[in-house]
Amino acid sequence: MKRQWFKLPLHQLLQALNAGEATLPEVVASFYERIAKRDQQVGAWQYLIEQDDYLAEYESRRAFYDASPLKGLPFAVKDVIDTADIPTTMGSVIHQDRIPDMDASCVTAMKAAGGILMGKTVTTEFAYFQAGKTNNPHDPARTPGGSSSGSAAAVADYMVPIAFGTQTAASVIRPASYCGCVGYVGSKNEFSLRNIQPLAQSLDSLGILSNDVLDTILVRNILLHKSLEPMPQASGLACVFGVFSGEVLGPIEDKMLETLAGCQQALGGQGYHHVDFPLQETVAELTVLHGQIMAYEVARNLVYEQQFETLGSHMQALVASGLALPYHDYIAALEKTDNLKQALLRWFEQQGADFIMAPAASGVAPAKDEGTGAPFMSRAWQLAGLPVVALPLGYYQKLPMGLQLIGKPHQDDRLLMQARQLQQLFLRSQEAVSA
Amino acid sequence: MKRQWFKLPLHQLLQALNAGEATLPEVVASFYERIAKRDQQVGAWQYLIEQDDYLAEYESRRAFYDASPLKGLPFAVKDVIDTADIPTTMGSVIHQDRIPDMDASCVTAMKAAGGILMGKTVTTEFAYFQAGKTNNPHDPARTPGGSSSGSAAAVADYMVPIAFGTQTAASVIRPASYCGCVGYVGSKNEFSLRNIQPLAQSLDSLGILSNDVLDTILVRNILLHKSLEPMPQASGLACVFGVFSGEVLGPIEDKMLETLAGCQQALGGQGYHHVDFPLQETVAELTVLHGQIMAYEVARNLVYEQQFETLGSHMQALVASGLALPYHDYIAALEKTDNLKQALLRWFEQQGADFIMAPAASGVAPAKDEGTGAPFMSRAWQLAGLPVVALPLGYYQKLPMGLQLIGKPHQDDRLLMQARQLQQLFLRSQEAVSA
Repeated sequence: MKRQWFKLPLHQLLQALNAGEATLPEVVASFYERIAKRDQQVGAWQYLIEQDDYLAEYESRRAFYDASPLKGLPFAVKDVIDTADIPTTMGSVIHQDRIPDMDASCVTAMKAAGGILMGKTVTTEFAYFQAGKTNNPHDPARTPGGSSSGSAAAVADYMVPIAFGTQTAASVIRPASYCGCVGYVGSKNEFSLRNIQPLAQSLDSLGILSNDVLDTILVRNILLHKSLEPMPQASGLACVFGVFSGEVLGPIEDKMLETLAGCQQALGGQGYHHVDFPLQETVAELTVLHGQIMAYEVARNLVYEQQFETLGSHMQALVASGLALPYHDYIAALEKTDNLKQALLRWFEQQGADFIMAPAASGVAPAKDEGTGAPFMSRAWQLAGLPVVALPLGYYQKLPMGLQLIGKPHQDDRLLMQARQLQQLFLRSQEAVSA
Repeated sequence: MKRQWFKLPLHQLLQALNAGEATLPEVVASFYERIAKRDQQVGAWQYLIEQDDYLAEYESRRAFYDASPLKGLPFAVKDVIDTADIPTTMGSVIHQDRIPDMDASCVTAMKAAGGILMGKTVTTEFAYFQAGKTNNPHDPARTPGGSSSGSAAAVADYMVPIAFGTQTAASVIRPASYCGCVGYVGSKNEFSLRNIQPLAQSLDSLGILSNDVLDTILVRNILLHKSLEPMPQASGLACVFGVFSGEVLGPIEDKMLETLAGCQQALGGQGYHHVDFPLQETVAELTVLHGQIMAYEVARNLVYEQQFETLGSHMQALVASGLALPYHDYIAALEKTDNLKQALLRWFEQQGADFIMAPAASGVAPAKDEGTGAPFMSRAWQLAGLPVVALPLGYYQKLPMGLQLIGKPHQDDRLLMQARQLQQLFLRSQEAVSA
């Protein structure tokens, strides 16, 4: 019987290839079959490399790929990330014919490590609110979230094991939560953003979507040119955490709050130490400031597109509000941000805390006619430049819900190890339930 | 007798056009004549628009240009700043045929305000140390400085009234000092860097080169979409300043120290209040950290170019040192930077200081065979994200020397007003000498 290679995470596919249990063309064929079966419903791909072209690339440099860390396995990138000779439209009709002359540095790094670009995934227009064609893989009437819609849907639906996204507000963490995959956003400035089309430079981050935290760690290490061996051992990490429900920011669905409470309780049973997180107002203020800073910077980044009537109405409204914001209000917002961020960092320091646990979104994916969902659960951390990992830790009527772990700046490695440990705990408890 | 329009700064050209004293084609012809006469010696241009094409663009949209803020006057951009349909080579043979698909946002903003792109100016390879063809306009045996070599030389030699540069270490301030023009580097994140090829994202800034601070203010306001009227009145600004000689960082030429002392004395006579600046070690530590952070980030930004043997030896060495720097050393350098930056900001706060005055470079432009000059006078401020203005305030054997004013973050407007006041004071004292 044919193995369902597409269901395996990247690191297990590498093990299978190394052990001779699979060949690269078999694995690739498995992914393309999955896409053929599923993408008409999901609509995750903006541009898909033909399978023949993919395999021709592999065969043309087979010695290189076979000896490489990624062995020719596929990855996908959101359509705001430039790829040489392949259209990068930013989800905009203004750029529908745009073919960049260079790969973004994250693409180059993956290719240099032996990854093969499978295609571009759908983004909302300029990584903002105007939805693309993608549907939630769990229910086509629901949004996959935005703006990394296609990346989250493609990974969660097992069409590709790894995809890059970008986040300026909540564009990796929210779709990861709605689609049910692992989303990771690095600390501010953690990764090179060269040739990724910017939206708001104080806020933009690269993100990684996967189905397993170990895969996220592997790709992160490739991007940072870090040693790829040994893979980290995640067990028995001591841990102190706070909990933020998000209710001060907006309505949170009951099922999400139950998931949060359940995880908090489960962690307590595993020897995790829960501490109070009283900075509700700090997070609320950062959330408001994020919106102002984003609007101001977007208006100055999208100068070119403002000349086109075909710019979507969501973006036109954002640009207008950004142009209306006086310079001194923008500067004042940056200064307030500094102070509020210091307050967050002092909390981590004084509590000896490792992470804050919070809903990754306000609930399950909403219906498509309600838009791509609310970003308020991410704005504060994004403005503060903190690393975040979203994990699919809850389900409600077969729809996934994510919780996010928010860590200290540049403690991404430790945060990912803790996320790995949580993922393992949760998988064990799921297995116990189904046993 | 034909007027030498090319010698006038941008704001005076605008006045002349508004008053009907000149026509745009006359002014443009004056600049092209200057280029024809001078550029064989200076070599500032990487790519120059033909005069006929320039005028054809003006005539094709004459109503727009005549009614616009910049009225069709020329500007130039460094060859790391993307321009649609015009080569952007980054000073590298790897990219000698590269034609971007989009303008950088600073180019779009200038065009939208009625500026016409005259061409691309020479950069060192990837805005680092490998010199291009440009010579110092005051002595062809000397360097114009780097990396915004062509922008500084073209403006200082009156071939174009405004040019954009970029600065990661000292790439605007040093060439401004060596060539004798006004150099301005904005606070970190002050301007959109969209479609400017990045070198090190924690450090990269856009810069403006001009011959008059009023022009710099005008262009800054265009980039920020600020109101262009009224032009600021610069007189009678109360001012508190510290002085940093730079000797703790490296050897400073006697003539430069004399220029610094002379300006300090002159300011005292004008009612400026001098306060002690004791943070010598803070600046020295920031200078070292800048080098580490730059090397680490460059190595991760230039992933693509590392695959080419044609990458210059200076850049290869920088990339190698960046790849050798462990991640945790990089993170530690970022954390140390935060603390040292806070010390600088506390000094400004406690002294009520407006700016630090320091040499913009270690002395006059060195001979070309010594490279493009040392960047150590800028690294600390660049890493701290402070705004800087360099002014040509001294001469030694007909070679210009600049002093730099270093201001508080996002107090760029006030800093430029103070620079304007200093430029006026200095012009008056020059006129008194020559009278």
